[in-house]
Amino acid sequence: MAQPIGRHFLQIPGPTNVPDRVLRAMSAPTIDHRGPEFAALTTDVLEAVKPVFGTTNPVVVYPGSGTGAWEAALVNTLSPGDRVLAFETGHFATLWRDLATNLGLTVDFLPGDWRHGVDADALAERLAADTAHEIAAVCVVHNETSTGVTSAIPPVSRALRESGHPALLLVDTISSLGSVDYRHDEWGVDVTISCSQKGLMLPPGLGFNAVSDKALRAAETARLPRSYWDWRPVIEANRTGFFPSTPATNLLYGLREALRMLDEEGLPQVFARHLRHAEATRAAVRAWGLDLLCLDDRAHSPALTAVLVPGEHDADKIRAIILDRFNMSLGAGLGKLRGKVFRIGHLGHFNDLTLAGTLSGVQMGLSLAGVPVGHGGITAALDVLEAA
Amino acid sequence: MAQPIGRHFLQIPGPTNVPDRVLRAMSAPTIDHRGPEFAALTTDVLEAVKPVFGTTNPVVVYPGSGTGAWEAALVNTLSPGDRVLAFETGHFATLWRDLATNLGLTVDFLPGDWRHGVDADALAERLAADTAHEIAAVCVVHNETSTGVTSAIPPVSRALRESGHPALLLVDTISSLGSVDYRHDEWGVDVTISCSQKGLMLPPGLGFNAVSDKALRAAETARLPRSYWDWRPVIEANRTGFFPSTPATNLLYGLREALRMLDEEGLPQVFARHLRHAEATRAAVRAWGLDLLCLDDRAHSPALTAVLVPGEHDADKIRAIILDRFNMSLGAGLGKLRGKVFRIGHLGHFNDLTLAGTLSGVQMGLSLAGVPVGHGGITAALDVLEAA
Amino acid sequence: MAQPIGRHFLQIPGPTNVPDRVLRAMSAPTIDHRGPEFAALTTDVLEAVKPVFGTTNPVVVYPGSGTGAWEAALVNTLSPGDRVLAFETGHFATLWRDLATNLGLTVDFLPGDWRHGVDADALAERLAADTAHEIAAVCVVHNETSTGVTSAIPPVSRALRESGHPALLLVDTISSLGSVDYRHDEWGVDVTISCSQKGLMLPPGLGFNAVSDKALRAAETARLPRSYWDWRPVIEANRTGFFPSTPATNLLYGLREALRMLDEEGLPQVFARHLRHAEATRAAVRAWGLDLLCLDDRAHSPALTAVLVPGEHDADKIRAIILDRFNMSLGAGLGKLRGKVFRIGHLGHFNDLTLAGTLSGVQMGLSLAGVPVGHGGITAALDVLEAA
Amino acid sequence: MAQPIGRHFLQIPGPTNVPDRVLRAMSAPTIDHRGPEFAALTTDVLEAVKPVFGTTNPVVVYPGSGTGAWEAALVNTLSPGDRVLAFETGHFATLWRDLATNLGLTVDFLPGDWRHGVDADALAERLAADTAHEIAAVCVVHNETSTGVTSAIPPVSRALRESGHPALLLVDTISSLGSVDYRHDEWGVDVTISCSQKGLMLPPGLGFNAVSDKALRAAETARLPRSYWDWRPVIEANRTGFFPSTPATNLLYGLREALRMLDEEGLPQVFARHLRHAEATRAAVRAWGLDLLCLDDRAHSPALTAVLVPGEHDADKIRAIILDRFNMSLGAGLGKLRGKVFRIGHLGHFNDLTLAGTLSGVQMGLSLAGVPVGHGGITAALDVLEAA
Repeated sequence: MAQPIGRHFLQIPGPTNVPDRVLRAMSAPTIDHRGPEFAALTTDVLEAVKPVFGTTNPVVVYPGSGTGAWEAALVNTLSPGDRVLAFETGHFATLWRDLATNLGLTVDFLPGDWRHGVDADALAERLAADTAHEIAAVCVVHNETSTGVTSAIPPVSRALRESGHPALLLVDTISSLGSVDYRHDEWGVDVTISCSQKGLMLPPGLGFNAVSDKALRAAETARLPRSYWDWRPVIEANRTGFFPSTPATNLLYGLREALRMLDEEGLPQVFARHLRHAEATRAAVRAWGLDLLCLDDRAHSPALTAVLVPGEHDADKIRAIILDRFNMSLGAGLGKLRGKVFRIGHLGHFNDLTLAGTLSGVQMGLSLAGVPVGHGGITAALDVLEAA
Repeated sequence: MAQPIGRHFLQIPGPTNVPDRVLRAMSAPTIDHRGPEFAALTTDVLEAVKPVFGTTNPVVVYPGSGTGAWEAALVNTLSPGDRVLAFETGHFATLWRDLATNLGLTVDFLPGDWRHGVDADALAERLAADTAHEIAAVCVVHNETSTGVTSAIPPVSRALRESGHPALLLVDTISSLGSVDYRHDEWGVDVTISCSQKGLMLPPGLGFNAVSDKALRAAETARLPRSYWDWRPVIEANRTGFFPSTPATNLLYGLREALRMLDEEGLPQVFARHLRHAEATRAAVRAWGLDLLCLDDRAHSPALTAVLVPGEHDADKIRAIILDRFNMSLGAGLGKLRGKVFRIGHLGHFNDLTLAGTLSGVQMGLSLAGVPVGHGGITAALDVLEAA
Repeated sequence: MAQPIGRHFLQIPGPTNVPDRVLRAMSAPTIDHRGPEFAALTTDVLEAVKPVFGTTNPVVVYPGSGTGAWEAALVNTLSPGDRVLAFETGHFATLWRDLATNLGLTVDFLPGDWRHGVDADALAERLAADTAHEIAAVCVVHNETSTGVTSAIPPVSRALRESGHPALLLVDTISSLGSVDYRHDEWGVDVTISCSQKGLMLPPGLGFNAVSDKALRAAETARLPRSYWDWRPVIEANRTGFFPSTPATNLLYGLREALRMLDEEGLPQVFARHLRHAEATRAAVRAWGLDLLCLDDRAHSPALTAVLVPGEHDADKIRAIILDRFNMSLGAGLGKLRGKVFRIGHLGHFNDLTLAGTLSGVQMGLSLAGVPVGHGGITAALDVLEAA
Repeated sequence: MAQPIGRHFLQIPGPTNVPDRVLRAMSAPTIDHRGPEFAALTTDVLEAVKPVFGTTNPVVVYPGSGTGAWEAALVNTLSPGDRVLAFETGHFATLWRDLATNLGLTVDFLPGDWRHGVDADALAERLAADTAHEIAAVCVVHNETSTGVTSAIPPVSRALRESGHPALLLVDTISSLGSVDYRHDEWGVDVTISCSQKGLMLPPGLGFNAVSDKALRAAETARLPRSYWDWRPVIEANRTGFFPSTPATNLLYGLREALRMLDEEGLPQVFARHLRHAEATRAAVRAWGLDLLCLDDRAHSPALTAVLVPGEHDADKIRAIILDRFNMSLGAGLGKLRGKVFRIGHLGHFNDLTLAGTLSGVQMGLSLAGVPVGHGGITAALDVLEAA
């Protein structure tokens, strides 16, 4: 491998490029997690994180990954054998399905082609058919990190509301939170799952659950074994600024700083920026004559773009060329998409010129790999950026 | 509260003073957790951590806390309703008991006075009585962080071995690992539980399980629901340097650096240093005329010392004076010891002069709080340090 | 001003983008500048810096700026009223002339148009005419940071050598060292002046003088008052790893790390990279239909490119648009070029994609400012980068 | 040398222990020194530094060391051959004398025993005798870093004022500024010289001159050659937030943070803390039965304490034992005091417990070196600290 030169372009769809402000904040000395300075930190971040989720309800923060936050959402609200409805939107929806199955839940997994979002009509049908209210929860991945398809949540909420079905709504916002407009309260979500290393611009290591009152009530009767993930002692201890077990102090420093940055830019501006970068990226892909994985124009992810490579090419080889030659990491095709797509992360701490560098690297890498893409991609992207 | 001046003395028994080398290492940019540089990092730290556990078997690293690592040890090896034998050595043993109970296990909790370690004879009796082999696991806290009492593991192992009982041996080394001599393989431990923020000198955020072959076999049949904590996919992915879900990259950078530091000093030197500091601390406590919580001279912790305050005094007020006046955090009495003891952490990244500063602050703080301790404590401690 | 978003593009021709490795190295605790660890640091960096200058002779490092290093070169070698020959290659050559004048030297300043390098024939003429050997030193700026013109040093050396003139040769490599091939010994330079914040990838704060034996002999008789800048006590103290006055410890940490990075990449690769980026930049400028300031095709700087804006436009307004809109700093026109040119720094810790981002920002900024540049610039640059 | 364990105690009298807040601030990316963000930084620090000097006049900041700031004070105010009156208070006064001599000034150096401060009566005599006003400047070291003796400035000012002598008053506050009460304006000082690495808690690399109006007038006629150190272009450029040559950006970040820390604690509290630590240190020295170098009880330095070792011992060997065994650096005896004294720095980012650790290390080190000091030193120091 060539010596990597200059700053690495970490353009996988998470972990994202951590701002050096956040890295510096995280390098402060660890403090007593039972002392007054810590209590102030907790109180600060737990308030400041709420607007990002669009909630005024508690947000539970764990030392853990997004996978852990998935598990937390399930074990706090469900009981062994409970039936869960989920949608095969891609690799991560499938992994969540597997996790639920491992925990002893029964998952109705509505098949999908990994190129569209959740079908709210299919959901409505299923809910209507479930007159016995056997479905305890509906699980939706807001932004499928493996496909670059974003599922609109309001139609899902509407289907639940209009059906009068009591199922809980659990939404994974792992690669959308802090990058894509999201409204836990307004959309009637019961548990919003997220983690630190995407739009929140932190290293990995924190998992999140935003929790509705209905979810909290469900937690009182849910019978899946739980202890580490149990919301209740966390929420109780958080009232005075503490945690029942040792929290990930330095990641919380980073979270405080990252939330300040989101607030300084303004969430509407953050969301608009991601939309603009996604649009510019798609303009480039189209100009290259390549296909987007996402087939629904209303469902393109603001956070990442998955690109199909022509059949005779191996996407992983293209990525390897780009890593070797241009010191940029792109996301691999996952699961059944392995070798067939690459994914461009354009989320987090990111700006127009970094996107221009990113797309330039993709364009050159494709060309070096023998994919006949021409020159128009970067130009088309710059047109979008300049016009914004 | 007075403005804290100068460097804070974080003398709780963990999180410990994180070396700035480790903080700097952790402030490197996050990298692609599926790329070649990451695979090299994983391979490096997973090998380098083994000697600290005294094992050549796999060590599983989680984004999570020590509490999560407790849970991991149980859910990987046990089934609903399994009987577990545990010892009431203090607050953390009690919390682990509660966690096991929450998970649906039945815990035989041998009562203790929080001033002695595990009674291996009592264990032998229990094992002998359990002719039906109903006890699935024996849980021991190696170093009770709430009491400063270290339980010798070899007698426990011997009791298990000599009884021919098939129970697994699960040992919590949360506040001993990297500070106190420990030998997972030699002592026949099945799961060793630990975390990052004590002797490993990292911020909190990583949990560890070192796993014996017997424990791995138990994992094949254990039926507690598990997914996030499941060792098997982690160990499988680790073979090529990866993780099944996103690992806490920057904490792993810190772990690599901390392991280098332990190796540079040499583990025997690290352990001897902790023994020396503990001895010097006890010399100070005795010279002050105060009582150690630990009543067994063979069981004093090398990592922390819990000190009883005279009955008319409130240990928390003394701690508050010391924090306010000398910018030093000490550990509080936990559970039933609240207000009755304070705990001096002398583990991790720590040296003779930092200990001298620590004990000077304790001595002055006691005096300011009206505890008549005289001047001899620090002098007695320096005698120990100088003679070493 | 809009909130700056994402990572800043610092594309002035120095200070350059400091690698985070260097920033981290600099954040280590300051140590005793008279202790053994410091001596090892000094010895290490003073050896490792030599190949970058192309010398085996001493390199003197000062806490100071490049301006200080200019002064050091003069006061160590010259006496009040000495005559110095210099070339008006641009703003910095003019500032150095002023500095020399301030110090009481007489400067023969050969006029130039700021669009060409040093005229070695004119030098040869002057030297031939100076039969009395009144010229004590010839001052050359290797890479004019204000113009993007690099003067070849070998013809200058040849002129001196062939004339048999005893004048010293003083060369400013402030914006070339570590980016452009340079050979102090081979080219017979007597004092090479440089500083930390350009190709050496450090923050500003260190000045350098590489010193020939002839220069050291000159220092014995030079009579300009000097003390702080005096080479002799520095070189003497350096022998054992120390400095006569307190050195800038943390910048030396950074220097050690930066020199490691140059060594890891390899100096020939570093120089080739800068040549490639300069070529790509010029391809973009030409495709935009704009004029390069440098009129000599053999003299284009590998480190920066100065671009003339069409007469009706104000380069500073263009720069302001680019800073505001794209979070990128470009170099201003200096002195008589104010408002007429902008300068693109493409030196230091820099790679193809960062260049692509940079040129994309310039292209969009020009367009937004109403300069009709079309789309071809970035495409032309990518052609160069891809072909490399 | 033993592996250094734990945090180093940097108890030389400068560079001092740099707070990690300052190190983190310094690790921010370097910015454009001609851009708007930089101008705000300059304006901020140049205002915030004034109260530390006790001035409302300009403070000039250089990339350079304290030695450079000495030179700057002289070359801005004096002309070749000018007569300067200085006092042999110790090694640094002697070095400053040498520097002035190197620059072509004539120094009247009033002899001293290195154990007392400046004799203001002797000064008054000299001024009275100088009826021709040949003395152009009086140079005083406020706090002799080599001896731990602080010279009161008000009597010096009074002697100048009462004599009606026009000489300038130049004061070196290198190891007092930010640690010892100092009042440039009130005491009528003309140039106050300082640097970054002592009470200002920064790494080395910045020199300072605070400048009176009288000094500025002197600069108009002074004829020592100067350019880099010339105050006038700096003060002129500073008006709009810039510098005539590239400033040491990252050290300025650190300066901003350090000034915030001094302001948060409050200068009166900072000064009182240093007085308390000095008193506690002297109490320890006396209890050890050792002699202080300083013989004048009104002149003990709040910033450092120089201790004489009994004649048969080598202070450098004692220091080596302490470095090797306790990971602490102490200051060496300088010049004629080599081997005869060691110096304890107790300035900068420092608190009671760090002092207790420091004095514990000194006490143990002396004992290990065979100096019969007994146990009372640390106890005596704690009495002072506790009572404060």
